[in-house]
Amino acid sequence: MLTAGHPPGRAVDPPNSPWRTLAAREVYRNPWLRVTEYDVVRPDGAHGIYGVVDPGDNVTIVALDDEERVWLVEDFIYPIQARGWLLPSGAIDAGEEPQAAAQRELEEEAGVRAGRWDALGAYYLSPGIATQRTYLFLARELTAGAHLREPTEAAMTMRQATLREALDASLRGETPGAITALGLTLAWNYLHPAS
Amino acid sequence: MLTAGHPPGRAVDPPNSPWRTLAAREVYRNPWLRVTEYDVVRPDGAHGIYGVVDPGDNVTIVALDDEERVWLVEDFIYPIQARGWLLPSGAIDAGEEPQAAAQRELEEEAGVRAGRWDALGAYYLSPGIATQRTYLFLARELTAGAHLREPTEAAMTMRQATLREALDASLRGETPGAITALGLTLAWNYLHPAS
Repeated sequence: MLTAGHPPGRAVDPPNSPWRTLAAREVYRNPWLRVTEYDVVRPDGAHGIYGVVDPGDNVTIVALDDEERVWLVEDFIYPIQARGWLLPSGAIDAGEEPQAAAQRELEEEAGVRAGRWDALGAYYLSPGIATQRTYLFLARELTAGAHLREPTEAAMTMRQATLREALDASLRGETPGAITALGLTLAWNYLHPAS
Repeated sequence: MLTAGHPPGRAVDPPNSPWRTLAAREVYRNPWLRVTEYDVVRPDGAHGIYGVVDPGDNVTIVALDDEERVWLVEDFIYPIQARGWLLPSGAIDAGEEPQAAAQRELEEEAGVRAGRWDALGAYYLSPGIATQRTYLFLARELTAGAHLREPTEAAMTMRQATLREALDASLRGETPGAITALGLTLAWNYLHPAS
């Protein structure tokens, strides 16, 4: 059970790790995340624990129409008890490729499908406590699809803004989400490389 | 106990919330984070649970010397079982102002103090599962301070790169951390607004 909360396919305590892992216990699990507590020997040689949150990886989508308007999700976000707008995002299902998950989430949330996909990179959201990485995609050549929302998404609404307007608003702090600000930045730089 | 895992000072279920919270249980706690499971009525009217991770807020610092070189932390990051470089960051202690936390973390990790601070914004790291927000700061007018590392930071090393080099590397995916990429972007845009 030593690998319980670590990224799949990654060995625990590779040779370059200054930590040693002695034991692992799953201390919480629900359908969306699990928490594992490890008994460790820390880099300074002392014994301790490390709690690691594993929600699984997810995807974040910058979907642009032919006028470079981006689709944004507006919803009440339960953990922060506030409404806000974010880029469409969602969990990658077991065995699913990131781009397939992005296509599925985009159709579920925005009701559109994309004919053209470009990968914008993958980043850890909070690597000091969680294994979760988000895969960011640029989606273009949009056509109408079906809204297939999950029950938790019943209060979600969609809106559009130009990529530049959304990016400027996010860098002014008008979105709550760091990944939304980063995704809009990556998409802008991809489409408008500095001369 | 209904407010157990929600952001301090924020009412549970404000009038604009489509969720109703029925009960809260702390299901895990260690010195660095706690997890609360809420019994909820979801926006579609069905009963369910929502697990919320609360590590407390933190700070992320873009510290620049007089040649616009940024301080980066290189360390083995236990949850992702890999080495990587990140902007200096750390938790805000109870009752501590974000800028004071940033000054303390910068001195602990980089061994420098800053005479000039500018706020670059605050963003939630993973608002769908966690209450944690990071406050980003630009720190300048650096002078030597004392390294005061925590025991978990014994294997940490520091390096410097120009802000532009670090930003380009982060946008190419050479840092594991989303907040590092975002912080470098915010600092660059603050210092070099597009003409």
